[in-house]
Amino acid sequence: MARIVMKFGGTSVADLERIRHVAARVKREVDSGNEVAVVVSAMAGTTNRLVGWCTQLAPLHDAREYDAVVATGEQVTAGLLAIALQALGVAARSWLGWQIPLATDDAHGKARIQSIEGAELIRRMQSGQVPVVAGFQGVGPDRRVTTLGRGGSDTSAVALAAALRADRCDIYTDVDGIYTTDPRIVARARKLVKIAYEEMLELASVGAKVLQTRSVELAMKERVRVQVLSSFDDGTSLGGDLPGTLVVDEDEIVEQEIVSGIAYSRDEAKVTVRGVPDRPGVAAAIFGPLSAASINVDMIVQNVSADGTTDLTFTLNRADLPRAEQTLGEHRAGIGFAALLADREVAKISVVGVGMRSHSGVASTMFRTLADKGINIQVISTSEIKVSVLIAAEYTELAVRALHTAYGLDA
Amino acid sequence: MARIVMKFGGTSVADLERIRHVAARVKREVDSGNEVAVVVSAMAGTTNRLVGWCTQLAPLHDAREYDAVVATGEQVTAGLLAIALQALGVAARSWLGWQIPLATDDAHGKARIQSIEGAELIRRMQSGQVPVVAGFQGVGPDRRVTTLGRGGSDTSAVALAAALRADRCDIYTDVDGIYTTDPRIVARARKLVKIAYEEMLELASVGAKVLQTRSVELAMKERVRVQVLSSFDDGTSLGGDLPGTLVVDEDEIVEQEIVSGIAYSRDEAKVTVRGVPDRPGVAAAIFGPLSAASINVDMIVQNVSADGTTDLTFTLNRADLPRAEQTLGEHRAGIGFAALLADREVAKISVVGVGMRSHSGVASTMFRTLADKGINIQVISTSEIKVSVLIAAEYTELAVRALHTAYGLDA
Repeated sequence: MARIVMKFGGTSVADLERIRHVAARVKREVDSGNEVAVVVSAMAGTTNRLVGWCTQLAPLHDAREYDAVVATGEQVTAGLLAIALQALGVAARSWLGWQIPLATDDAHGKARIQSIEGAELIRRMQSGQVPVVAGFQGVGPDRRVTTLGRGGSDTSAVALAAALRADRCDIYTDVDGIYTTDPRIVARARKLVKIAYEEMLELASVGAKVLQTRSVELAMKERVRVQVLSSFDDGTSLGGDLPGTLVVDEDEIVEQEIVSGIAYSRDEAKVTVRGVPDRPGVAAAIFGPLSAASINVDMIVQNVSADGTTDLTFTLNRADLPRAEQTLGEHRAGIGFAALLADREVAKISVVGVGMRSHSGVASTMFRTLADKGINIQVISTSEIKVSVLIAAEYTELAVRALHTAYGLDA
Repeated sequence: MARIVMKFGGTSVADLERIRHVAARVKREVDSGNEVAVVVSAMAGTTNRLVGWCTQLAPLHDAREYDAVVATGEQVTAGLLAIALQALGVAARSWLGWQIPLATDDAHGKARIQSIEGAELIRRMQSGQVPVVAGFQGVGPDRRVTTLGRGGSDTSAVALAAALRADRCDIYTDVDGIYTTDPRIVARARKLVKIAYEEMLELASVGAKVLQTRSVELAMKERVRVQVLSSFDDGTSLGGDLPGTLVVDEDEIVEQEIVSGIAYSRDEAKVTVRGVPDRPGVAAAIFGPLSAASINVDMIVQNVSADGTTDLTFTLNRADLPRAEQTLGEHRAGIGFAALLADREVAKISVVGVGMRSHSGVASTMFRTLADKGINIQVISTSEIKVSVLIAAEYTELAVRALHTAYGLDA
């Protein structure tokens, strides 16, 4: 017997038929003797519709009212799934954030969980009832409804799993696990049986949008074993084998690969600030105003100085580019740059693996592989378990495929 | 300066454009110096969709989950209207049933209000903020969401007006007031300036579905002055004149009419139980089983006995007729009747007015008027302020028009 939190995303509960399917899936877990709690998202499309209404009424609206409106999506699904479970003879009841309570801070629209009262839910699970928790929502210190930000139901599920001391948190999505890279680009991509939290975090932040980043951070902090699996295929657990990918502590991964996956992101833009005076404080002069405008900068490279001036290159989310150009333009006098160049046609390719900590040569393999394909590297950045490069966007698929082969990841 | 509760129904908030219109209407009331609280229904169509989902998942579903699902409709409208008000510069915030709290009993799906905590809302109104309350919902003793039954937002509004000691409760609907009869039948029907609670109750129960019956009962009990007015026309209050119909204590109605209105209902059916033994207990034998089956019986007539047997005739809601026939069939042996006759082609016509208490001749005017038109009266029932007759349905319009003229109600 195990205690399991099952989380179902918006496409998994998109209509009544799929809600019935989810109920049957939950029943199977209950029937096999497990204690189960469920976390649900809003039915696919609902949240976008509700957000759209708020924005149409006022582009800048009260985040507390936004929360009251959008949190209803998950409330509907929780009630409907409880009804569907009861129809299958499974004892169930819905729980809203304020009823648990799942307490958050007062950062409406992107609140952070502060505590979850788990005792009553545990008591009910032990007596055979399935709590169906509305994801994405909590209650703030002002007793108003809060939401956790887009994708927040993943975080709800992981936090609930921690509070309930669950053995596992199963995240049902529209993919059936975490792959070595995007299977749409590399047909021979392999599904990973296990992946370390740190690797998942690096993959999440570079575009493999399976789990909300915060949910992975929380899982790592609370040591919650997370399983990513598909809500559509019906792979039952045979002989203890799990059908999805387990996100776990790296100590649990016995056969450590050096590189676990190749990620890419096309949402990048590159900015080069030409001819800035090479003196202390110039980086602060550039990045201070960007930070003040809430623009996140990713990779940064400063060229070697020549003639007392230098060039500074950085990358950022492409959607932020117009605001970054405007911000720097407004501060041109203070910074004293000669020209501003922007390039939208770039992509970031990342090689991720906790094995890098103990193995050298990962970066040089990457550089050589790209050079062999004639791909020019524009910017490089590294972390303990990741090497990222910026290249021309048109080489994205070629680079991902070549690296996937080079690190021995092909199935 | 007055304190006003304004209630807007589903068609008044059917889309964003109408929500903006409602916000402008509320702002006008605020700008003229009044303290205002608003109660909203779900956007038209929303509740039916949510109810449909529950029913499709399980025809007999947990009423507590049904409440969690359907209460979201009003939550959405409350948040959206708060946003729309803020966009017009009006301080506003949404309130859910559990936040006020608006406490109800645990009769999920048709809960009754037990108490409303009004102090905080009054404090905020006095400081210039408009509370936007989600109608139709409350919180039960088990800290779960409850709903008040269809049309319950009217009751929310009246109860809130009582709790806030409001000077008036304005109910905005898709009609612009209470008429002497249905204007679709009688073109010369007049809008009433005032109507007594008791009259409104009698009218509500016979088919003029402007206000939920419970809301009128509550208004009468708490002495809340209710105004029914249109959310579509824009009749501003000039010189103290009110554009709708005021539902008030009869003492407030100075120029008392003997008859205030003519109501009709086509949702009737007539059942005649033929040849029952004329002995004590036979009425109980017939109506006991019907009551046990939750079938409401309206008018009842027992014929004069002949040969030791008698006939019993009663009316009921047409939708209940099949169940009534089945129930009586099952108890045929116990009752011992000879035959059961049902007639769906009947209508109930009612003449209503508190003036009847002090005037005689109202009933005889009714009977003579109908006789003059050749309309046969099948059943008669009377109350202190109402005379009702059952006639063949095909005479409905003719009877209503003739009575409207006979009592001097034509404009």
